[in-house]
Amino acid sequence: MVFIDACHKKPVKHTPIWMMRQAGRYLPEYRATRAKAKNFIEFFKSPELACEATLQPIDLLGVDAAILFSDILPVPLEMGLDLEFIPGTGPVIHNPVRSEADLGRLGDDAPDRLTYVYDAVKIIRRALPADKALIGFAGSPWTLATYMVEGSGSKNYAIIKKLLYTQPQVMHALLEKNTQAVTEYLLRQIEAGADAVQIFDSWGGALEQSMFFEFSWSYMLRIAQAIRAKYPDTPIILFSKGVGSYLEQIEGDFDVFGVDWCTPIARAKEILHPRYTLQGNMEPMRLYDRDRTREGVEEIFSVMGKADGFIFNLGHGMVPDLSPDNAKYVVELVHEISAR
Amino acid sequence: MVFIDACHKKPVKHTPIWMMRQAGRYLPEYRATRAKAKNFIEFFKSPELACEATLQPIDLLGVDAAILFSDILPVPLEMGLDLEFIPGTGPVIHNPVRSEADLGRLGDDAPDRLTYVYDAVKIIRRALPADKALIGFAGSPWTLATYMVEGSGSKNYAIIKKLLYTQPQVMHALLEKNTQAVTEYLLRQIEAGADAVQIFDSWGGALEQSMFFEFSWSYMLRIAQAIRAKYPDTPIILFSKGVGSYLEQIEGDFDVFGVDWCTPIARAKEILHPRYTLQGNMEPMRLYDRDRTREGVEEIFSVMGKADGFIFNLGHGMVPDLSPDNAKYVVELVHEISAR
Repeated sequence: MVFIDACHKKPVKHTPIWMMRQAGRYLPEYRATRAKAKNFIEFFKSPELACEATLQPIDLLGVDAAILFSDILPVPLEMGLDLEFIPGTGPVIHNPVRSEADLGRLGDDAPDRLTYVYDAVKIIRRALPADKALIGFAGSPWTLATYMVEGSGSKNYAIIKKLLYTQPQVMHALLEKNTQAVTEYLLRQIEAGADAVQIFDSWGGALEQSMFFEFSWSYMLRIAQAIRAKYPDTPIILFSKGVGSYLEQIEGDFDVFGVDWCTPIARAKEILHPRYTLQGNMEPMRLYDRDRTREGVEEIFSVMGKADGFIFNLGHGMVPDLSPDNAKYVVELVHEISAR
Repeated sequence: MVFIDACHKKPVKHTPIWMMRQAGRYLPEYRATRAKAKNFIEFFKSPELACEATLQPIDLLGVDAAILFSDILPVPLEMGLDLEFIPGTGPVIHNPVRSEADLGRLGDDAPDRLTYVYDAVKIIRRALPADKALIGFAGSPWTLATYMVEGSGSKNYAIIKKLLYTQPQVMHALLEKNTQAVTEYLLRQIEAGADAVQIFDSWGGALEQSMFFEFSWSYMLRIAQAIRAKYPDTPIILFSKGVGSYLEQIEGDFDVFGVDWCTPIARAKEILHPRYTLQGNMEPMRLYDRDRTREGVEEIFSVMGKADGFIFNLGHGMVPDLSPDNAKYVVELVHEISAR
């Protein structure tokens, strides 16, 4: 698989590409699949529907890897939190974790309860062409904690930061629980057939440098270490959004560093490549315009050239009203330019 | 004034300090002043109430500079947009700018209509002790545009980025209008008595590197240039939030670069100091805890030492439930440590 080879920095015939949130609302086919479930939780709990959504961008766009269709919040859901996705608002946790006592409410058996995800992985891997990789994923312990503590998305993370700065031991205890759950969750995804795993630290950049490394990155590395120990050949991708200023301190045993669009790819290359395979980082909003799409792809290749250890991706997820045609165009461009 | 001396990189007896949003809801005195106006627009339109709010942190905390109490949105309001501050939601513009035709709706006389701001500056400067500086301010053309186009705060800036990537000429035309208005607005604040001016580019970091320099930074520099030409001794402070990865390309004729908390101060120092005075950058949420407050102040001084050309500030604004006592503690610490 060209994707897995790139993770391992092996030479490839073309640069592999996939796109964060490639299975998403910008695809009419996704919206049709979504409409078959009565709500978002039922959607990701259905292995059949998750499989359908996962495979769509493979067929429609020709990307080199599928990413399991799911969300990061099944983990806190199965730890026992009262999660609801409210249309127009987003995810809400009605009983957030706000104190040491609240930690007692969190069940330890989430990885056992997430069987619907492993079932999805199994049927996706069977349905997927042999040359296409399947990426499993989870939210980072810190990013999961932001939802678990804030109770929803947040503008300034005041609630969780108050907890972090005033009761760091409670914060660490919560992150410890999340780390154990995520580690086991990813191991089981690999056992079910995932060819690689990515940890999404969407809100790592909500933390100042020293706190990012203490409260987010260190836990991501612990998960990576546990996966490496058991499945040394499975590529591990770490993606923290908004930490472009902290790259000089990035280190640890993993394979691929996900670069967001706020980080100049030249900066990431200088500091992290070829130590790590880089994955990224086109600004997704360029897909609003065909010329800007081409320009964005060309700018990235002008930096990365035909280097081994590079996976083309967006620097963040697709948004709902982007053009599927331009998404397909990105895939064609990346394959064409890199195969020259 | 120690603040103005630091802007000019002159030796000072102690490091000056002020805090972004120091006149804000975390102060009970501010909430009492706010309660005298029937809504937020009436609040900032009242020179007397604006003066009251501006002076409170000088008296209560002992900061070295006052910043005009206002908002960035009087400018689009006086360009004719239908602005409302909805409690719990934030600012909403009911008739956002979405097309070239919409630009025709924007009046050119906003700087003439903002007399209530110049009146506030005049009475504040008269009331302020001679050794305390008064900072005037405005939003950057780009940051104003985000509200003018999105119609409210935004999570992903999809509407304005669609405009930017598909119709850059419309985007530039809007930024041109904002630049003219902001330039004149700041000149008149200086004429009314402001000792320095800061341009707040709160959403500069919403743009990828090349777009940031084209659509935000270049306009900020044009404003700086116009101010420099007319008032060469008035310090100009530029603050773009979220551009810590782009510092290598920062240049231009201004005095002070505002450093956000997402940018390690050591990185800002290495790249920008002593070319520019640095202003920043403690994570405001440290003020939840007294020990973390002290630690944060000490960490910053461990990097900046007793360097000339440094102004202590937070790396972003105060939030409502932070402790006024800890804010006062920061001021004491900064004065004490830097005077040693």
